[in-house]
Amino acid sequence: MIIIVAGGGWLCLQNFSLVKRVLIGAPMKTEALQSKSNHLFWLIALPILSADLYSSVAYGPEAGMSELAQLGPDAKWLILPITVAAVLLLAILINSYIMGVLAYPNGGGAYAIARDNFKHSWVAVTASSALLIDYVLTVAVSVSAAVAAIASAYPAVTPYRTTIALICIFVLLLINLRGVAEAAKVLAWPTFFFMACMLALIAFGFFNEFRFGFVQAATPSFGTVPKDLTALLVLKAFSSSCSALTGIETISNSVPIFRNPKQKNAIKTYVALGILEGVTLLGIAYHLYVHGISVHSSNTMLSQLTALIFGNGLIYQLITWSTFVVLILAANSTFNGFSQLAAIVASDGFLPRKLAQRGDRLSYSNGLITLAALAGLLVVFFHAETNALIPLYAIGVFVSFTIAQIGLVRRWGHIKGRHWKVNLAINGIGAVVSAVVALIFAVTKFTGGAWIIIVILPWFAWLSLAISRHYKEVRSQLHIDLALDRPVTHEVTSIVLISGIHRVVNNTLSFAKSIDTNVVAVYVGFDDASIERIQKQWKEWGSPCQLVTLKSQYRSLIGPISSFIRDIQKEKGKDSYIHILMPQFIMKKSWHNLLHNQSALILRTWLFLHKDVVITTVPFHLKK
Amino acid sequence: MIIIVAGGGWLCLQNFSLVKRVLIGAPMKTEALQSKSNHLFWLIALPILSADLYSSVAYGPEAGMSELAQLGPDAKWLILPITVAAVLLLAILINSYIMGVLAYPNGGGAYAIARDNFKHSWVAVTASSALLIDYVLTVAVSVSAAVAAIASAYPAVTPYRTTIALICIFVLLLINLRGVAEAAKVLAWPTFFFMACMLALIAFGFFNEFRFGFVQAATPSFGTVPKDLTALLVLKAFSSSCSALTGIETISNSVPIFRNPKQKNAIKTYVALGILEGVTLLGIAYHLYVHGISVHSSNTMLSQLTALIFGNGLIYQLITWSTFVVLILAANSTFNGFSQLAAIVASDGFLPRKLAQRGDRLSYSNGLITLAALAGLLVVFFHAETNALIPLYAIGVFVSFTIAQIGLVRRWGHIKGRHWKVNLAINGIGAVVSAVVALIFAVTKFTGGAWIIIVILPWFAWLSLAISRHYKEVRSQLHIDLALDRPVTHEVTSIVLISGIHRVVNNTLSFAKSIDTNVVAVYVGFDDASIERIQKQWKEWGSPCQLVTLKSQYRSLIGPISSFIRDIQKEKGKDSYIHILMPQFIMKKSWHNLLHNQSALILRTWLFLHKDVVITTVPFHLKK
Repeated sequence: MIIIVAGGGWLCLQNFSLVKRVLIGAPMKTEALQSKSNHLFWLIALPILSADLYSSVAYGPEAGMSELAQLGPDAKWLILPITVAAVLLLAILINSYIMGVLAYPNGGGAYAIARDNFKHSWVAVTASSALLIDYVLTVAVSVSAAVAAIASAYPAVTPYRTTIALICIFVLLLINLRGVAEAAKVLAWPTFFFMACMLALIAFGFFNEFRFGFVQAATPSFGTVPKDLTALLVLKAFSSSCSALTGIETISNSVPIFRNPKQKNAIKTYVALGILEGVTLLGIAYHLYVHGISVHSSNTMLSQLTALIFGNGLIYQLITWSTFVVLILAANSTFNGFSQLAAIVASDGFLPRKLAQRGDRLSYSNGLITLAALAGLLVVFFHAETNALIPLYAIGVFVSFTIAQIGLVRRWGHIKGRHWKVNLAINGIGAVVSAVVALIFAVTKFTGGAWIIIVILPWFAWLSLAISRHYKEVRSQLHIDLALDRPVTHEVTSIVLISGIHRVVNNTLSFAKSIDTNVVAVYVGFDDASIERIQKQWKEWGSPCQLVTLKSQYRSLIGPISSFIRDIQKEKGKDSYIHILMPQFIMKKSWHNLLHNQSALILRTWLFLHKDVVITTVPFHLKK
Repeated sequence: MIIIVAGGGWLCLQNFSLVKRVLIGAPMKTEALQSKSNHLFWLIALPILSADLYSSVAYGPEAGMSELAQLGPDAKWLILPITVAAVLLLAILINSYIMGVLAYPNGGGAYAIARDNFKHSWVAVTASSALLIDYVLTVAVSVSAAVAAIASAYPAVTPYRTTIALICIFVLLLINLRGVAEAAKVLAWPTFFFMACMLALIAFGFFNEFRFGFVQAATPSFGTVPKDLTALLVLKAFSSSCSALTGIETISNSVPIFRNPKQKNAIKTYVALGILEGVTLLGIAYHLYVHGISVHSSNTMLSQLTALIFGNGLIYQLITWSTFVVLILAANSTFNGFSQLAAIVASDGFLPRKLAQRGDRLSYSNGLITLAALAGLLVVFFHAETNALIPLYAIGVFVSFTIAQIGLVRRWGHIKGRHWKVNLAINGIGAVVSAVVALIFAVTKFTGGAWIIIVILPWFAWLSLAISRHYKEVRSQLHIDLALDRPVTHEVTSIVLISGIHRVVNNTLSFAKSIDTNVVAVYVGFDDASIERIQKQWKEWGSPCQLVTLKSQYRSLIGPISSFIRDIQKEKGKDSYIHILMPQFIMKKSWHNLLHNQSALILRTWLFLHKDVVITTVPFHLKK
């Protein structure tokens, strides 16, 4: 088995570019970027931009109720007030984000708003860090929830959830590396279908209750106060159920992709989505209550409700798979969001510049790979359990919501304009509510996992600032005055390291003599006999240049060569160049590399890090 | 946790040489090799050279009996004939090896004998491959058995056996990297102590039987034929118990370390060791039979016997720990044996030459590390279960025994000499017996794991021959005629790759102009605007050399640069040099490397593998 895997890996490496072409596709020209015109009709934009938000109806109510499961059936009625509170919060946030659309018609994510409205860049990097961390969690949570949906229908799958989740992430990565933007419209239909399924589920739920009564045998009592209920538990359940609100910012980030009038269409979409999401959340919560459905570790509440209303037949299968698909689409849209945000932040100098480079297929491949790797790690550590990931989730989103809202408040206060007081009030309320929810999250979930985010978020923001400082520093060091700083020539001492007299040395020396500098050959011997032998051979060879022999008692090349270089540097002065020439074998077969001492490679790396020398590698191509 | 580990790893890398010094010690001079005079008195050599052989009494009889465990108590008496057969084999092998000592006073391992007596090198590499594979297994088996001894006394340890075995291997590696040879005499005493323990165990066993009867309640009947007994099972049990005979070759490999008369002392040691080993095997087997001790998965038979005779008190603890120590010493002596054999084979050109290089502390560090890594892998795969490893074990040893004996037969036939017919007969018997045992092993253990060795052994031998062919090929390609082949100069075209006009480019161009060749600056732009900008700036900069601009539509540097090089090569002819100069940032802090595109590194690697170009990297040291 191992041999087969290793062999396969080897073949892949050998034919890496071929494998890459098959999986990712042929490279694309830069011009292809401009030719894309993806301006969308709002009704098509609705499902595309809402997969992240709407799909969370599949796990949001359950995340809330799992906090209260320990209290027994008496606490089941609490799903209703908690969901009502979450829907109220949704309404406030959507209003605030509509303000964001009005203010930033070119797409204003929390990062852009913070960059624009705060002088100190730490606010903006806090927003970007919070969002990037949350995007990673969105992928992990959505994929885990998608796999949980399947595992509910097919319990045999349960032990392999982590593996399946990892495969999903890998496939999403491949799709995004190919660059899926052209096919985006196709992705609207599964979300539409899922929305239709959810609405049908709610409608048939009412039909069922109309026939069998609005109070059924399984319906728990309403309003009883369970013995161990505390305010903290209620807040915990509320904050967990708020995980259903993540993804709300997507539309405001994407205003430019709407058809004209862009802003109006975006707002229309926001309103429609808000109504849909609210109705769905309330409807599902209501039916979960009426049927007294409990949290179950291997069968999601949504799956239980579907089975109860439609039975375990075809419709159950359709809803299960559409839940799976829409959650995967939510993860998919996050790949896009993460890589684009990372690219913007990186081009501002707050993240490694690699993240701002487009790959072969014009996608920000480094960002995509980073996201997939981090989300994969999370899935592995948390064994693809959605409810274990929830405590880490959403805190970042609400931090970035808060920053965005405060930014908008500052903006209205600054530019004033029509209705500015109303706008300011709306965003002010949004800011306060977001901040309160973030705080509730941080406090109630602290021990459950939120502390991880509370530690990582400031560290990540600090790192972003450090990266920015480094880039600025480098830029100032690299800057030259075109009129004053011009290339100047200095003396060059070329040192050729030789291990004997053979064709490779002949080859290297030929090059050294061709560039017409002061050439010295250096031989490091481990004993006197070998040194005498080389001196004799050198004379026989007609002494093509000066030969220096060094003895190494510790069988190391680095020591003697290093002190020899120091001596020459002292003699020639620091302006002159020390130029080391080394041969490099180029093998016909790559496994042959294992058979040759890589001392040249090690020496080159060491010299590079520790000495101010120019290093030339002269290749020697072996014929077999 | 991960962060701590990662941080620790980072610190280790940063201070690698410091960590290395603390663990391994200061480097040693080559001269230190000659100053060692470890000529040993035979009574001290006995325990030092016999740890491998003698320690296997701890698992040999048990390995045999575990094959028969399925037959129930009726089969227990078979331990007696099987052990008698193994001791007979021991006597034959010791006689054969004494012949080896007489023939090769400078130490004649199977590899040396085969090199000397067979024209074709495949015989020798088969012997060396068999021995090297078996050394790896010796470490895995000895360490696993050592840990099993401890786990028998302390059952709480059982779940952590793999981890403890890995730690043991790692500690052994460190000790051997330090070079333990000076302390070798100290290592004699634990083996002496273990021998004394075993003899005491046997003596007290007889004392016990003298008091309570030689047939006790637990004594199984003798000579009954269990229902399912087959000849194959008996052979299987016999071959497993022959794992107690591995390590027999150590003394014949080490003749030079004896005091004069070396050969006589070595033979004396062989005879003494043979008697000791035989008595111990027979004694233990006899007592195991009398007390009717069964195979138990978490309590070794030796531990059960000890507890039965001495109780679970201090003496039991002493014997347990001395078993542990002597098995670890067996593994330790194998580290020495493996790295020395690998070095000899490597210096003959049949293995990568790195294995023949002495490290800082004069030990063959690459061989030691290879052995530890392979043995560690085996321990992990087989969960440190001795009886699971046994089927892979000993087959290699008996293959090498056979080759050595046939080699000696050929030698006696060739050189004749005194008593040559007797010698030839002894080795002839040895060869036939070894071959038969190897065959029995291969057949009876095939499905149990021996097939792995039967696959790997020929592959490894083939690989050794391929390595040898490669080195010969390279040697012939590198050979030059000192009178005819002399360095010749050719035209050099220096190409400086630039990414803009800044201090780094200034620095690189300065060097290029200092070596006084034909210099061309090459700029690869991804769009027309950047190309026009660089052309304008280049003029402002006073055009220090010719500038060529290339446009890359696919945002890749490799394509355009590659075709530019091809054009120049065509123009200048194949004898002229293409010389590529690249800048290389040298960061003050290593994490800064992550912030800079490593495109230069990738480009350099690509050019090296695909083009015949000389590459120079000019460092630019960042100040912060």
